Amino acid sequence: LGSRGILDILERLNAGEVVVGDGGMVLQLERRGYVKAGHWTPEAAVQHPEAVRQLHREFLRAGADVLQTFTFYCSEDKLELSGNVTDITGTQINEAACDLAREVADEGSALVAGCVSQTPCYLENHNEAEVKSLFKKQMDEFLKKDIDFFIAEFFRYAEEAAWAVEVLKTSGKTVGATMCISPHGDMSGLPPGDCAVRLVKAGADIVGVNCHLDPTACIQTVKLMREGLERAGLKAHLMIQPLGCHTPECNLTGYISLPEYPFALECRSLTRWDVHKYAREAYEAGIRYIGGCCGFEAYHIRAISEELRAERGFLPPASEKHGLWGAALEMHTKPWVRARARREYWENLLPASGRPRCPSMAKPADE
Amino acid sequence: LGSRGILDILERLNAGEVVVGDGGMVLQLERRGYVKAGHWTPEAAVQHPEAVRQLHREFLRAGADVLQTFTFYCSEDKLELSGNVTDITGTQINEAACDLAREVADEGSALVAGCVSQTPCYLENHNEAEVKSLFKKQMDEFLKKDIDFFIAEFFRYAEEAAWAVEVLKTSGKTVGATMCISPHGDMSGLPPGDCAVRLVKAGADIVGVNCHLDPTACIQTVKLMREGLERAGLKAHLMIQPLGCHTPECNLTGYISLPEYPFALECRSLTRWDVHKYAREAYEAGIRYIGGCCGFEAYHIRAISEELRAERGFLPPASEKHGLWGAALEMHTKPWVRARARREYWENLLPASGRPRCPSMAKPADE
Amino acid sequence: LGSRGILDILERLNAGEVVVGDGGMVLQLERRGYVKAGHWTPEAAVQHPEAVRQLHREFLRAGADVLQTFTFYCSEDKLELSGNVTDITGTQINEAACDLAREVADEGSALVAGCVSQTPCYLENHNEAEVKSLFKKQMDEFLKKDIDFFIAEFFRYAEEAAWAVEVLKTSGKTVGATMCISPHGDMSGLPPGDCAVRLVKAGADIVGVNCHLDPTACIQTVKLMREGLERAGLKAHLMIQPLGCHTPECNLTGYISLPEYPFALECRSLTRWDVHKYAREAYEAGIRYIGGCCGFEAYHIRAISEELRAERGFLPPASEKHGLWGAALEMHTKPWVRARARREYWENLLPASGRPRCPSMAKPADE
Amino acid sequence: LGSRGILDILERLNAGEVVVGDGGMVLQLERRGYVKAGHWTPEAAVQHPEAVRQLHREFLRAGADVLQTFTFYCSEDKLELSGNVTDITGTQINEAACDLAREVADEGSALVAGCVSQTPCYLENHNEAEVKSLFKKQMDEFLKKDIDFFIAEFFRYAEEAAWAVEVLKTSGKTVGATMCISPHGDMSGLPPGDCAVRLVKAGADIVGVNCHLDPTACIQTVKLMREGLERAGLKAHLMIQPLGCHTPECNLTGYISLPEYPFALECRSLTRWDVHKYAREAYEAGIRYIGGCCGFEAYHIRAISEELRAERGFLPPASEKHGLWGAALEMHTKPWVRARARREYWENLLPASGRPRCPSMAKPADE
Repeated sequence: LGSRGILDILERLNAGEVVVGDGGMVLQLERRGYVKAGHWTPEAAVQHPEAVRQLHREFLRAGADVLQTFTFYCSEDKLELSGNVTDITGTQINEAACDLAREVADEGSALVAGCVSQTPCYLENHNEAEVKSLFKKQMDEFLKKDIDFFIAEFFRYAEEAAWAVEVLKTSGKTVGATMCISPHGDMSGLPPGDCAVRLVKAGADIVGVNCHLDPTACIQTVKLMREGLERAGLKAHLMIQPLGCHTPECNLTGYISLPEYPFALECRSLTRWDVHKYAREAYEAGIRYIGGCCGFEAYHIRAISEELRAERGFLPPASEKHGLWGAALEMHTKPWVRARARREYWENLLPASGRPRCPSMAKPADE
Repeated sequence: LGSRGILDILERLNAGEVVVGDGGMVLQLERRGYVKAGHWTPEAAVQHPEAVRQLHREFLRAGADVLQTFTFYCSEDKLELSGNVTDITGTQINEAACDLAREVADEGSALVAGCVSQTPCYLENHNEAEVKSLFKKQMDEFLKKDIDFFIAEFFRYAEEAAWAVEVLKTSGKTVGATMCISPHGDMSGLPPGDCAVRLVKAGADIVGVNCHLDPTACIQTVKLMREGLERAGLKAHLMIQPLGCHTPECNLTGYISLPEYPFALECRSLTRWDVHKYAREAYEAGIRYIGGCCGFEAYHIRAISEELRAERGFLPPASEKHGLWGAALEMHTKPWVRARARREYWENLLPASGRPRCPSMAKPADE
Repeated sequence: LGSRGILDILERLNAGEVVVGDGGMVLQLERRGYVKAGHWTPEAAVQHPEAVRQLHREFLRAGADVLQTFTFYCSEDKLELSGNVTDITGTQINEAACDLAREVADEGSALVAGCVSQTPCYLENHNEAEVKSLFKKQMDEFLKKDIDFFIAEFFRYAEEAAWAVEVLKTSGKTVGATMCISPHGDMSGLPPGDCAVRLVKAGADIVGVNCHLDPTACIQTVKLMREGLERAGLKAHLMIQPLGCHTPECNLTGYISLPEYPFALECRSLTRWDVHKYAREAYEAGIRYIGGCCGFEAYHIRAISEELRAERGFLPPASEKHGLWGAALEMHTKPWVRARARREYWENLLPASGRPRCPSMAKPADE
Repeated sequence: LGSRGILDILERLNAGEVVVGDGGMVLQLERRGYVKAGHWTPEAAVQHPEAVRQLHREFLRAGADVLQTFTFYCSEDKLELSGNVTDITGTQINEAACDLAREVADEGSALVAGCVSQTPCYLENHNEAEVKSLFKKQMDEFLKKDIDFFIAEFFRYAEEAAWAVEVLKTSGKTVGATMCISPHGDMSGLPPGDCAVRLVKAGADIVGVNCHLDPTACIQTVKLMREGLERAGLKAHLMIQPLGCHTPECNLTGYISLPEYPFALECRSLTRWDVHKYAREAYEAGIRYIGGCCGFEAYHIRAISEELRAERGFLPPASEKHGLWGAALEMHTKPWVRARARREYWENLLPASGRPRCPSMAKPADE
């Protein structure tokens, strides 16, 4: 047991527990008015801590076992490049974000993961020393605060992700690493299995996929990672935090290539029932760290918790405000709504879009 | 100028100003884990004030000129019937909700509207004295707090709405009244024009429509209300707070009749660009109190503020985190995303659902 | 009994019989390579009689009680204007078309209807004498041949249709008249009920609608015609020959306003099961002359005959090659296809388009 | 030059000419009322020769260089099994079909291909001698008539197809062989490349794919065949006659697995513009025998001829009744229709289905 009397992330995973991740911060805070699309930087941790705190809290209530620091794109080079924040330093954001996640995590018994993500620097010059120094700076800021483990996430190149892992491992803490890649592999053409091998060799304890593609594609990618690790005789825990949108037409670059990105994705959003299906399939694929990324709101995370309630042994606080499979509709005044208070109804529903002039599939820009 | 040095609601409307309403509380707080679908009662005002406060704040930042108290379905009979809250009284909720709205409204210069909605009692016995006593009780609780005016909203019968208005007018305050009806009229078959006449004769200063149907249908209904008032030689301000979903197939009972209600409505959600179109059309129809109901999130309210920025003369705080018509995408690394930093792109986009096995129109249950 | 020992059209309708009409010639012969889209003139009656004869025969075998002469757009002014046929006269076409229809009709016991349609002349100058002389010329050519009655069809203006009826009635023969209008009325704004009154007053024995809109819209229009006649205290038989395509978005000008017209209408085509539904609804609306126009192929006409087999008392020859409601699938090798040998399957099927990038509704050009 | 003074099929292909195939007989004659779905046998060649002759003629006019005898499923065992025809022998059908194809072919300068297809016998007992005797019987009947070459088509197993080729090659005539398989291979799991190798080793001069899947899938399969032949150092001409429907969701068993098979396929039909695209892609893939199967009507075959008019050097007779890329619409009375008289319009059109309650993709039964 750690200092708070709760199991740490590896203890949980090693014991075979299901770890529920949190949802997406950036996209949701954009909709709430605190993050600027195009920049996607997390200065709200300093500017509007109440908004970040509240979103963390929603994920906690929904059953998240881990709260990730709101530090996406918070490397110095990215902040400078975006030009969005001139009076706030990355150090300030990183430190504030750690405090916020910690504060809310301690309202329950969640762990806090300090998060780093891809850097513009890597694409610009591939300079290992320079890229690593960016990660090192962020890590050092996290280490001044009370975080439980690290996650390197949203990497399109296995090489850069491996560099991040190598840096973070110097802390002695557990490191998870997720890439935003498709079953076709990373942007250099490295297949998912080889990406996973590279990450584990770099020191990652947990590997997987996040963002960019829908649950179906992400599960397929993590399966390929698992197979790659098996072939190489390596072991690691598996993790998945997919996009909360349907992206059946996406290939390499994921939802960024869709015409709807980033301001018309609503009609692609997962329902809670889509998430039930996802959580079950991820579990059956042997993945034990199961969360979400952009588009996953609190009720999506709750759906993971509810689908895996038998495996976990409990329901989250927010389930007090939710009848399983719609059970609370039994009290509705309309008979046809009462008839929806059952699993079969929602599992078989094919929801209509209400948009008869819109297609169901788009042509991705990178096709 | 009122006690806070800001114009009250009638002064604003009489001066021809655009008043931006807030968005939907109930559906959004359900997703965040604080409201139970099926019950839809607002006990979170007492149980989780921070969550209610934060959602109010998002609407305020998005430009809302009015914050409505989170008192939906908060009549005693409804609370009892739902059986959802046993240890919290309606009085507690009503009072807490007034305090929360007031607190956040004063972070800006918004007005607070105390809100009442339809009662189960009306449907059960149509007893005017009994129904009115329920509204009177709520009103008295509101009057103990600092609210600026009243809104009677979400009424399916003009008669019940008129009773609510008659009660609320005894306070001496301004009263708005909105019905959740379609262009076909209220559930007794009374056409929208006649509904409006009845409400104005009962004392309503502002009349209109809220919830249940999409912007297109709601604008059509308010136009019919306006025509009814004109024919009767009556005057009132017009108000609209539609559903944030596309409901082209809905008739009388609105989105409750859709197979997707209430747990699979995602793919029907309005984009911010749908809201630009809506705000413009509502304005052109002569409506000056323009907000949203269920499904309207902060970014939808911001879209109203942005569409009508010339008419209002300013942008809301949350627009600091939003490039008009996607302008901030100009800095994106992908050329095809940069090409989306313009109005024409988003106005003409027909977003794909990513759901090729789903239809675009459903068969409503009440058809 | 007429000269051939069969009842004529009025005897049949007066006796309450169902009369099955034929399908569309022009669109089908375009696909077979004998009619030029844009011109739509019937010179194939002279150039390729075997093709016209074969299509007549398919409709006869499918149960058509009437074969219409292939004389669409065969007024002299239209033929000249189209410039498509320089070496064949309208007289030649009209005479050849009568012979072809007669020849095939006598292979069974069908009637032959000589058909005239709208003239460019009417739109150009509204000169009653000139327009009527065009109809008179065609009528005289028909009268040289052996035809049973007349149909004036595809009129967008009630005035021109009435002129045609007045001319055709001078022959002493029965006259049917159908307009290609929507429930909104003719192109001058005359409502369907008033159109019907005008036609009956001009002498029409049978009135109704053909082409331009789908069965749902056409049935609605014929109902409005019936109501108009009832209000005026007039009597006439009702007739319907709708488009064989789904056109839910069409208003005044019908399918010509759709982006798919005329070369991409395939995905809108009615299935045979759509036609079963149509035939039943038309029958229940009191319509007794039930056929089809553009897009109705032989199997659609057979579906009318099969749906109304109890009312008519027999099945058509082509039903020897068709199991009712798919019954002949019972012998298929695949179990899942055998499971389709029943009415419930086909009645409830919502067919997929196989076109995930295409919408389900278009924006008509005249909207 | 052959006896008729025209080049035979191999001379044409060896010279690099494009050979345009004909379209589908069975599905089209079902719609015209002459073939029974479920049985799909060709007794109409005896019962209604005028209907078969007319359809052959439409394909000839559309540019078909080859007319295939209407002898699908005309092996004795299949005819017996179907039980559809009791008074007509396979011999009678085969002979009549040869005469009909020959008669029409000689109205132009087309070749006649005698066609055999898969037998129930193969699936039942895999008895090579018995299966081959069925093919031998048909071949002998064809050889009594005047046919130019053979096609073995619609085979799901390469083994049975190879047996057919071996039999047909004993005639000394050219033999083409097409299988109704997907890129996944034949029903025994043999990949397309290996299927092609087997067929060529059995003696096939032309190999390829027909029926069951849409142009996109069929082109992919033929490409795999070509690669298989190249790897094996073998040479053969390539042939393609795909389904005239969009089948993006189909895998092994093709359109038979779709819920719409066989009576609700309308909304999947190719437009003529889809065929332009197909013909170009097939040509660019090195395929020189390009036709269609079920769902290809005369206007689809004409579209192949028109797309490849430069390569072939001429247009077919039916193009007299067709403006290239809709050119003849220039004379339409509606300005918006005139605006469609150009290639760009039709190439970019995404046709709407007019069916807002229907999905765009189905779940295949064999998934």
